[in-house]
Amino acid sequence: MGVWMRSILWDAESQQLRLINQLVLPAELRYLEIKTFAETLEAIQSMAVRGAPAIAVCGAFALFFAAREAETQDIAVLLETIRNAREELLRLRPTAVNLQTLTAQMLRHINSFDGSTDDLKAYLLEMALEAAERDVQTNLAIARHGAELIHDGDELLHHCNTGALASVDYGTALGVIRLAHEQGKRVHVYVTETRPWLQGSRLTAWELQQYGIPYDIVVDSAAGYLLRTGKVDRVLFGADRVAANGDVVNKIGTYLLALAAYDNGIPAYSAFPLASVDFESANANEIKIEERDESEVLSLSYHGLPTAPVGARARNYAFDVTPHRLLSGLITERGVLYPPFFRNLSVLRQYGREE
Amino acid sequence: MGVWMRSILWDAESQQLRLINQLVLPAELRYLEIKTFAETLEAIQSMAVRGAPAIAVCGAFALFFAAREAETQDIAVLLETIRNAREELLRLRPTAVNLQTLTAQMLRHINSFDGSTDDLKAYLLEMALEAAERDVQTNLAIARHGAELIHDGDELLHHCNTGALASVDYGTALGVIRLAHEQGKRVHVYVTETRPWLQGSRLTAWELQQYGIPYDIVVDSAAGYLLRTGKVDRVLFGADRVAANGDVVNKIGTYLLALAAYDNGIPAYSAFPLASVDFESANANEIKIEERDESEVLSLSYHGLPTAPVGARARNYAFDVTPHRLLSGLITERGVLYPPFFRNLSVLRQYGREE
Repeated sequence: MGVWMRSILWDAESQQLRLINQLVLPAELRYLEIKTFAETLEAIQSMAVRGAPAIAVCGAFALFFAAREAETQDIAVLLETIRNAREELLRLRPTAVNLQTLTAQMLRHINSFDGSTDDLKAYLLEMALEAAERDVQTNLAIARHGAELIHDGDELLHHCNTGALASVDYGTALGVIRLAHEQGKRVHVYVTETRPWLQGSRLTAWELQQYGIPYDIVVDSAAGYLLRTGKVDRVLFGADRVAANGDVVNKIGTYLLALAAYDNGIPAYSAFPLASVDFESANANEIKIEERDESEVLSLSYHGLPTAPVGARARNYAFDVTPHRLLSGLITERGVLYPPFFRNLSVLRQYGREE
Repeated sequence: MGVWMRSILWDAESQQLRLINQLVLPAELRYLEIKTFAETLEAIQSMAVRGAPAIAVCGAFALFFAAREAETQDIAVLLETIRNAREELLRLRPTAVNLQTLTAQMLRHINSFDGSTDDLKAYLLEMALEAAERDVQTNLAIARHGAELIHDGDELLHHCNTGALASVDYGTALGVIRLAHEQGKRVHVYVTETRPWLQGSRLTAWELQQYGIPYDIVVDSAAGYLLRTGKVDRVLFGADRVAANGDVVNKIGTYLLALAAYDNGIPAYSAFPLASVDFESANANEIKIEERDESEVLSLSYHGLPTAPVGARARNYAFDVTPHRLLSGLITERGVLYPPFFRNLSVLRQYGREE
């Protein structure tokens, strides 16, 4: 199983980050070169890079860039710069928790750092590189556990983009599909286009083409029809944040998919690294749902014509909450969890702490 | 309550039909002039005119055009021409039943026609004009019954386009909203954009602007979020065909909306004329769901870039089935029906026959 493509690469020679620019896919595969904190912020803000795991890893490099740009020799001042940089990062995309989890971990490691400012900068880069490598390993573990759920001949329904492009490589739900395919299982994927940003038709379809996995794009609304008419065996999606009870916050539309899967007795799985779990939230009801600019909804064109009247307004909620009762299983790097999720997530948390 | 706009007009002077061209809205309000059977077929096929009631009325005029173009003086030959024209029409859009219902009624009326071919042609035009007028009256009756369900201050969620543009005037679900607004009730409408054809953002948003009703466009996937977070008081949509048990075949995505409304205890109503009821279908499971060309899904552009990879394939199912168990009521020109729908629809059918 060869790693095929890295969507986030560190170029040691030029000491800069190379990111696949998701704004120009599928028309063009082009890398962005990122070498400052401000450029990283801009890449996340513009969604040139997106996907909870990918944002987290870019955020780790962003902390390194922020430190590299600081001219102070005072370690306390540098630590403060890094903490402020983190706050700025967290404001960009409030819903996904991976960035928060990873950067909190990094701050814990450097909280009582004993060394020069240059040492601290080097240590930050080391942690970012480790985070990138760990992301790939975690995703491969998710894929191995998840692929056991996929049968030869399966018709799969996948929402948003959760592949290599949403991570450093491999991804979560799409990694599961990719590994099942690499294991020789014949699968076909219905790809929801995922309005408004079209992560499905622009990114997931493109990834599936690279992997040689057959697929058809459908509008998001078609999921109900596909599930009700027996055209789908399994539903797979990722997670931007998971509450302690297993409620999944994910791309807008996931709740509807899960409702329709449940209504028709078809299993629905969310795949994510344990870094996506927010154990502080008992359920997902209070988790902040990012609302993005209305232009993402209104700026389509259809056969060359505008798709909304001049002066039209829109609301653009980026995520929704899928109550845990609708989910069949949670696919993590430690295995597939089944209900009761609150209990099985809590066991994993304890286990993680003891390591 | 003034009739504001007719989307289907008969021009007596030029003896031709004028249709609002829905392919160029909302960029432009432009009428198509239709004077032949072939042009009517083309208008329905291209979706320059769409919406179950509008298609039915255009179909009635199409039968007149087919007869007008026939050069025979033999009444039997002319009747055969008309029957063949109907068959051709019915093949265009297989799911909506209104066209079938209306043209079957017309054929019954002329089956044993006693008169000249010119008389028959004149009679066909008369029936088409009556059908157009009856459509407006039926829709006003639907609106009156439905508006009683709307409260001052309501937040409404509406799917697809069911307004004046989907009929001769007023429409079904959107007519209900329009009348409630004209009655002075303050309402706000969440308009689902309705991929792939964007009837919501292109047509419903445009209509609501004309009526001065405040609205926001949302992607179809956002319905679950809106319903789960208490942002919607009532869900309204139309129907392309209704089975005898109250199952509703409507625009793709309706099933998901109804599932989410049901899951959150929010009422969901389908509004339609009784001509949409297919009493021959005990439930909707066997009703043919039109699959349209994949280009409707794939031909978007987003910020000037293509939205799917070169060579991508798509499936484009135009309708889905909403099981009657998810619906709170059916709004018809004879009143609002509540469960058990199979019984209450059957009572209306009997009543209709006895008149």
